[in-house]
Amino acid sequence: MTENIKAVELSKKQREISISEFFTRNRHLLGFDNPTRALMMVVKEAVDNALDATMEMKVLPEIYVELKQLNEDRFIVIVEDNGPGIIKQQIPNIFAKLLYGSKFHTLKQNRGQQGIGISAAVLYSQLTTGKFTKIISKIHPKKPAHYFELHIDTKRNEPIIERDHEVDWNKDHGTRIELELEARYQKGRQSVDEYIKQTAIVNPHAKIIYITPEKERIEFPRVTNDLPKEPKEIKPHPHGIEIGTLIRMLKDTTSTTLSSFLQNDFSRIGPTVSSNICDEAKLSTRAKPSSLENSQIEILFKVIQNTKIIAPPTDCLSPIGSELLEKGLKKEIQADFFTTTTRPPSVYRGMPFLIEAAIAYGGDLDKESTIRLMRFANRVPLLYQQGACGITEGASDITWRPYGLGQSSGNLPTGPAIIVVHIASVWVPFTSEAKEAIAHYDEILKEIKLALQDCGRKLAAYIRKNVKAKEQKERISLFEKYIPELAFSLSNLTGEKSAIIEENLKKILNKNMSKLIESVQEDGKEESKE
Amino acid sequence: MTENIKAVELSKKQREISISEFFTRNRHLLGFDNPTRALMMVVKEAVDNALDATMEMKVLPEIYVELKQLNEDRFIVIVEDNGPGIIKQQIPNIFAKLLYGSKFHTLKQNRGQQGIGISAAVLYSQLTTGKFTKIISKIHPKKPAHYFELHIDTKRNEPIIERDHEVDWNKDHGTRIELELEARYQKGRQSVDEYIKQTAIVNPHAKIIYITPEKERIEFPRVTNDLPKEPKEIKPHPHGIEIGTLIRMLKDTTSTTLSSFLQNDFSRIGPTVSSNICDEAKLSTRAKPSSLENSQIEILFKVIQNTKIIAPPTDCLSPIGSELLEKGLKKEIQADFFTTTTRPPSVYRGMPFLIEAAIAYGGDLDKESTIRLMRFANRVPLLYQQGACGITEGASDITWRPYGLGQSSGNLPTGPAIIVVHIASVWVPFTSEAKEAIAHYDEILKEIKLALQDCGRKLAAYIRKNVKAKEQKERISLFEKYIPELAFSLSNLTGEKSAIIEENLKKILNKNMSKLIESVQEDGKEESKE
Repeated sequence: MTENIKAVELSKKQREISISEFFTRNRHLLGFDNPTRALMMVVKEAVDNALDATMEMKVLPEIYVELKQLNEDRFIVIVEDNGPGIIKQQIPNIFAKLLYGSKFHTLKQNRGQQGIGISAAVLYSQLTTGKFTKIISKIHPKKPAHYFELHIDTKRNEPIIERDHEVDWNKDHGTRIELELEARYQKGRQSVDEYIKQTAIVNPHAKIIYITPEKERIEFPRVTNDLPKEPKEIKPHPHGIEIGTLIRMLKDTTSTTLSSFLQNDFSRIGPTVSSNICDEAKLSTRAKPSSLENSQIEILFKVIQNTKIIAPPTDCLSPIGSELLEKGLKKEIQADFFTTTTRPPSVYRGMPFLIEAAIAYGGDLDKESTIRLMRFANRVPLLYQQGACGITEGASDITWRPYGLGQSSGNLPTGPAIIVVHIASVWVPFTSEAKEAIAHYDEILKEIKLALQDCGRKLAAYIRKNVKAKEQKERISLFEKYIPELAFSLSNLTGEKSAIIEENLKKILNKNMSKLIESVQEDGKEESKE
Repeated sequence: MTENIKAVELSKKQREISISEFFTRNRHLLGFDNPTRALMMVVKEAVDNALDATMEMKVLPEIYVELKQLNEDRFIVIVEDNGPGIIKQQIPNIFAKLLYGSKFHTLKQNRGQQGIGISAAVLYSQLTTGKFTKIISKIHPKKPAHYFELHIDTKRNEPIIERDHEVDWNKDHGTRIELELEARYQKGRQSVDEYIKQTAIVNPHAKIIYITPEKERIEFPRVTNDLPKEPKEIKPHPHGIEIGTLIRMLKDTTSTTLSSFLQNDFSRIGPTVSSNICDEAKLSTRAKPSSLENSQIEILFKVIQNTKIIAPPTDCLSPIGSELLEKGLKKEIQADFFTTTTRPPSVYRGMPFLIEAAIAYGGDLDKESTIRLMRFANRVPLLYQQGACGITEGASDITWRPYGLGQSSGNLPTGPAIIVVHIASVWVPFTSEAKEAIAHYDEILKEIKLALQDCGRKLAAYIRKNVKAKEQKERISLFEKYIPELAFSLSNLTGEKSAIIEENLKKILNKNMSKLIESVQEDGKEESKE
């Protein structure tokens, strides 16, 4: 009878789908939706990894990026770093298995966080060219370098090792990746060139050498020899989790008592808070975490949510810093005025984050068009999906006219300016796997606005002092020219001596001039008070 | 020495990330980013599955949907269908394992395609409430129904069975799912109510019973007892694949010769084309597919791309059809005029698709605001991400003024209208896992525009005939009122008798009137020719 049952027939088609197959068919979700963007994505994933690696090693980054054009739509991308290298056994998984990495399970300010990026680049290379990705990695001057040629077995999401052997590599330690891919190279706002330039701006401690497809060698020197403060890993904050996560944590913990679980697996729970929570939930502090019933966990969860617990630690974040952000900008952008600000850390859904902002004004920048918005997350430039990004919303929501920029309501302002926003967080809430836009959390939008308003006030003062004062001076000196002629005419009319009238007119003008200077000085005082 | 090497220390942190963990932390990617949307998503995933199931079973769908409100932000969702049911062994995987299903590996017009949807709903339920999802399924009147309570082991992406036993279920066959979740219920354009109403419009063969949180029972009757044409599964078209896919297909195929591989694993390759391709690529038709070298596959790929191959079959698609789409609309929308169109099938990247469109005009619809756009993909309403959707771009790119609607350029038109667009395809190119917006493929945009222009022409004829004619008539009858007065004045001026002037004026008016009627009749003829 079973043979005639539809469900039995249908059951034969049910199958597991590997994450590699899924993203092969849905590669646009990863940002690989056209050849131009694909080139930028591959460079970005490799450079992000390179910078994260050097940060782990605590060395000043020296990153080498090369694009070799094979024909109109075929490129080789090479990215090399001086990071710690990768041990031989893990090279295949790191580059040729999606959802594998060290960053997903930790809350720490890293560029990467999903364990998808670089293997997605390998997947795209393999899909469009069928070629193997070539890796060299070396972990110590006295250890051999290892060379790998890798594919992804998309059906099982496992690496396929085509070749692996030792090689000579004239380097103490580091990693080199070489991928061939279908791609297109173009200049402009969403190009590889722009990505690398912006990366240099927000990583002023990095030296980047970039060989363009035209074989031009562009060197971005470092502007500081100090490494950024090292970001620290933190535990989740008890107010940032959901009940399902609590259930899983209780099952997985290595802590043997409820009290030690609460103190070890969360941030900001000490012995007192821990025993208060247990009392309130009518649970023993010595209860075994994995033995709790679901009904008990529900009560525990509610008690935790209703307990006052201080905000998560924020010294885990590593901002660029106002001074270095300004240095980085000045190196790459021609403008008359720069201002930067770093906000104190804040929290969204239990996650610490902080916002930095900057404005560059005047100089070569175009006066007539919309300002240029540069968006960054954990020191990575975001070049796509500007319209969908919370940073764009934050910058558009501000009333910019009082700060000296033009604006039609609800839009980005206009004027000769570049506006920079950087979010640093232990977990950046991206709106898609392509990691190009930030989700619209209220707490984040608020901080973006506060940071930009701070920059805006300094910009307004600058415009008053320099731009407006300059215009006023020009007007006064124009009037000065006409004083003799005016005095002569008035003399004719009144019979007073022309020289006396001229002198009086000059006095009036000078009085106004000193008022103008005073007012500019006042602005200066206000500014320094801020 | 190894102990001091950074790479060795770092290697200890490297780990596999399960797809469940990934989506737990990134649940906004699946559309579960706030409690209102989450409620709609859970209903949608369950109802989509229910409708797909009844389609497989070839029965007229009877879908039961119930929302039970437990408190302000806690709901139970129940969805029940009369589909084929699911065999006992597969129930856990289908509901409690992400990336598992029957639809990903086939090219067929289904509502589901990713193997994520319903288990994502289970994941969200578990995350926000910690509760088990309850399933009942029965595959035959003479077989027992099975009851399951399920969780997902997020660390391994595997089902956890809390309970399973046989139950009595007063039904021949079908499936029932019950989930508890954190959610919020609201009315309006993005509500569960709207989702169900629109589902009824594009599934006129379905009967849906919906119990609202206010315990109101709304029944959507079916308007036809004919099942839609059954969609057919097709093989990939050789021009729609990339080299990486060809490599994998050659490795995985069950065909033993290259010739049979080309004929069996692709659509539209027959014996002649197959042997031409082999000749051109200098490969034996009897070569073993898995034995080809990469260099040979590269040549084979190029030859396939340069070989003329007819477009993929398009009889695999199952449109709603103009007549039923109109019936469905009339059932749910109060308007004066309805027009629908079904375009012939077309192809994007080797994938067959077709566009249907409709316009409802007048009646209760608001005259002053932007028209309402209803978007559908494989008979599923798309309620979110309208701005990011290719359908919106297609509808905005048309110049609507000649068709009788207002429009500021580049925007959706304004006027008392609802515009409906349905895309049916064996693979709908969604822009995210939440499946709410269609990617902007040129071929798809073109078809959307052609379909809407067709509806637009019919709308314009209707407006000319009815709306314009009515306005003209009103103007004439207004003029008629003034004839006596006008005749009197003219009589005073000219000396001619008032009665004669009056008569002449009436003649002129009548002549115009009959011309007007003629022109309207002409319009009617044109319309019936179309």
